[in-house]
Amino acid sequence: MQITVWQADSAGAPLQRTTATLLEPGPDEALLEVLHGGLCHSDLSMIDNSWGVSAFPLVPGHEVVGRVVQVGAGVDPALVGELRGLGWIAGSCRHCSWCLGGEANLCADLEATVVGRSGGFASHVKAHQDWLIPIPEGLAPADAGPLFCGGITVFAPLLDEAVSPTARVAVIGIGGLGHMALQFARAWGCEVTAITTHPEGKAAEAAGFGAHGVLALSALADHPARFDLIINTSNHSLDWDAVVGALAPRGRLHQLGVVTEPIPLQAFPFIAGRRQFTGSPTSSPASLRRMVEFCARHDIKPQVEHLPMEAINTAVERLRRGDVRYRFVLDGPV
Amino acid sequence: MQITVWQADSAGAPLQRTTATLLEPGPDEALLEVLHGGLCHSDLSMIDNSWGVSAFPLVPGHEVVGRVVQVGAGVDPALVGELRGLGWIAGSCRHCSWCLGGEANLCADLEATVVGRSGGFASHVKAHQDWLIPIPEGLAPADAGPLFCGGITVFAPLLDEAVSPTARVAVIGIGGLGHMALQFARAWGCEVTAITTHPEGKAAEAAGFGAHGVLALSALADHPARFDLIINTSNHSLDWDAVVGALAPRGRLHQLGVVTEPIPLQAFPFIAGRRQFTGSPTSSPASLRRMVEFCARHDIKPQVEHLPMEAINTAVERLRRGDVRYRFVLDGPV
Repeated sequence: MQITVWQADSAGAPLQRTTATLLEPGPDEALLEVLHGGLCHSDLSMIDNSWGVSAFPLVPGHEVVGRVVQVGAGVDPALVGELRGLGWIAGSCRHCSWCLGGEANLCADLEATVVGRSGGFASHVKAHQDWLIPIPEGLAPADAGPLFCGGITVFAPLLDEAVSPTARVAVIGIGGLGHMALQFARAWGCEVTAITTHPEGKAAEAAGFGAHGVLALSALADHPARFDLIINTSNHSLDWDAVVGALAPRGRLHQLGVVTEPIPLQAFPFIAGRRQFTGSPTSSPASLRRMVEFCARHDIKPQVEHLPMEAINTAVERLRRGDVRYRFVLDGPV
Repeated sequence: MQITVWQADSAGAPLQRTTATLLEPGPDEALLEVLHGGLCHSDLSMIDNSWGVSAFPLVPGHEVVGRVVQVGAGVDPALVGELRGLGWIAGSCRHCSWCLGGEANLCADLEATVVGRSGGFASHVKAHQDWLIPIPEGLAPADAGPLFCGGITVFAPLLDEAVSPTARVAVIGIGGLGHMALQFARAWGCEVTAITTHPEGKAAEAAGFGAHGVLALSALADHPARFDLIINTSNHSLDWDAVVGALAPRGRLHQLGVVTEPIPLQAFPFIAGRRQFTGSPTSSPASLRRMVEFCARHDIKPQVEHLPMEAINTAVERLRRGDVRYRFVLDGPV
């Protein structure tokens, strides 16, 4: 079938609207008509081929909300007409121990929505049925897209690691990821601190997202042994001794930003205080479903600026400059 | 009361046999007559004041097996005459959230057996009752001492982190800690690999301690995503990318050796594969009791070279050179 896509013809090129051919949905697959697409920082990484895994022409977009318009073999035809969300992963092998064990996000053969296949900034995108997440009542479809990549990225460190609601949680970086992390941690029942390089500019908004307090990143060294969990959304090199020093005994530093330099960790505070350093990618279909239900129950949503799909290159350029509070959603039709 | 001690008068000095004054056991305390004392590498660190926390004259020794000869207020007099083991910690505050929560080893006010008080290379040593661990039938008291510091150090990463017996476990460094880690991991039900710089010299012994296989440390890079848990007993800088690369998704690197340089960890494998970096000190009284019961049930014991207490300086010098397989125990009387 013929579809319309926004594609980059080479690394770093602007996106161009064109047509492309998409095979009909195969077994276990469904076809979405795209209604809304969030723009994620990893779309920029893919457009720029920063990770060396991009194939051009590249159709980015992996925070999709759309309507199922066609299903392949083995998929209940009643799915047609349903609204679904799609994130970083569009398929997994379903047969390895990770898939069978409920952690399909760790499958070695997973199909990433924008790696080697046509992504979500298009009239249509395909995915395997289990990675198409129902959108519960109470969650506005137009704003939900960023939950399926950015949202789950910061929800997984709470859900998948079974964080206690009694925990004192800090979030470093109040941006596209951090503003959702604050909302999740607050609704999770935790004590929530926003840590930012610009406390004066971000304090009121951070409080609006649920932070009980705001700390300057540069003041972290004055708060030793303070936090049970620090979720670090920044991809910059930090004063890591200060960050680790701000962890209480058994505290955990959870890294989400792909820092390019190695993170130098002193062994002693990890040994003496049983501290932990962890990280995580996106999560499983089951966790994605739990996330959207949690969002609907707690009225959690990304703060979104809507632009029409035609303005996608404007959105890309503004995101490059950090000129967005806090996520872009491009609205169809494509 | 007057007791006999082996003490270092200054940093790095040989131990001298002399007499000292010890206050009678206070509330909650008991007095041990020392029968056997393991020599731990951290005794060397204390003698040398490597950590800057030593007070001289210093009486080292924190892997004690002895008999209770006197108790203070609030301690059941029936304890007198019982055999007990004593490790790194001799007391904790009993009232903080860590103590009340069963993790007294993380108490901020803990009393370390050889820090600012008289340790176990002495005719007598005091401790709070809960840190005096019963020695179950089936565990030879003369060999048990090293369990109370070295043993628990490698048992805690299994017990306290709830490692699954289905895990593939590697132990880096087959020495004073590693030879016990192999035994524990094997009895835990895990697949066990010994990783050493000297596979030819250590293979047979490692197999005797329960290893299913032996790997050269330099070959680790050839085994990507192989292990669910790597317990690193080495305090040297390693090829950390190779070590982390040998972790399976969700795999954990557990650091026990106090490496002096920072450990440079790349963020990406932790994020993409949900890997973890952890560490731990000694454990709680409850975990210590579970450890000795596990040892008795599985016939786990440190491999020990016995020397009379008079030979303590010989033991210290040989341990400095690494000339021991695998732990020294000094036998009383002092």
